Amino acid sequence: MTHCIAKRSIPVERVRRYLEPGPIVLVSSRWQDKTNIMTMGWHTVMEFSPSLLGCVIAAGNHSFEMIRQSRECVVNLPTTHLTDTVVKIGNTSGADTDKFTAFELTPLPADGVDAPLIAECYGNFACRLYDDALIDKYNFFIFEVVSAQVATRPDLPETLHYTGDGVFTVSGKTISRRHLFRPGML
Amino acid sequence: MTHCIAKRSIPVERVRRYLEPGPIVLVSSRWQDKTNIMTMGWHTVMEFSPSLLGCVIAAGNHSFEMIRQSRECVVNLPTTHLTDTVVKIGNTSGADTDKFTAFELTPLPADGVDAPLIAECYGNFACRLYDDALIDKYNFFIFEVVSAQVATRPDLPETLHYTGDGVFTVSGKTISRRHLFRPGML
Repeated sequence: MTHCIAKRSIPVERVRRYLEPGPIVLVSSRWQDKTNIMTMGWHTVMEFSPSLLGCVIAAGNHSFEMIRQSRECVVNLPTTHLTDTVVKIGNTSGADTDKFTAFELTPLPADGVDAPLIAECYGNFACRLYDDALIDKYNFFIFEVVSAQVATRPDLPETLHYTGDGVFTVSGKTISRRHLFRPGML
Repeated sequence: MTHCIAKRSIPVERVRRYLEPGPIVLVSSRWQDKTNIMTMGWHTVMEFSPSLLGCVIAAGNHSFEMIRQSRECVVNLPTTHLTDTVVKIGNTSGADTDKFTAFELTPLPADGVDAPLIAECYGNFACRLYDDALIDKYNFFIFEVVSAQVATRPDLPETLHYTGDGVFTVSGKTISRRHLFRPGML
């Protein structure tokens, strides 16, 4: 796959612009010289600064121990041109598949973490584990985003939003209601 | 506003179908005979059964203490026909506005909680506080969904997804990749 996507760094507190809408993301990790990728739909922004992201990584995933042990990952934002790849990544296990190779994705260094980012994705958000208090009880990881980059265009990506049962909705038109906001609420 | 929306109950573990895609929701609450409504974009599904939902309710919101004290709320799913109302709810405070009256929304009883649901919304998910361990540190509430209903049509709603800066993306087309899923992954 091509990875010729021009990207720019953004302040980490701007990550909400891309993750609050609720897209499916790809989580890449590295532990003991092995890499892996998983799909994730259960995540939420938790704070602007520090830039916190909470997410559920089910303990049955091969990535679970890799991320718990390495205490970091990259949250990558795929767009609809990667739809089939996203689904295939979610339906294979890193226990027996090298997903970067199998799905022809390009690992690149990410600022601030050892986990590789996925070059073919629109956005790459490097994360360090910030709070592990709810991992044992809920498989819930709280990460701090330590670096962030997004494609220079389009301004907003066409993303996948999972409803279960193999069905996604796709982000559609953009509408602004800036004129209805009080200045302090923007 | 009209509230003539035919609805059906759904199993609470099916709530992910409507919330995992990441829509803006309206959270209704009741405490000491006052009701309130707030907008919320920072939420995630956390478990199917029990049906758990984690969300950030910033301490500055009038709803924060109402929900912390009453230990319940209803998460309502608005569609694009309520766009202006959603924005106005987010730009007023329950401290000085009765939002059901001001925005001509209809409070109806919800199964399992005393908080009212919003009749005009596509879906209504009644929630009881399940774990308050992260409220003090992150304003993060973990709720159990105890009852759920959605409109009988359309099959999937046209929802709002917030990117910040007064701009929303709207859920667009639906695509299925069921044929790429292993049976156990659906």
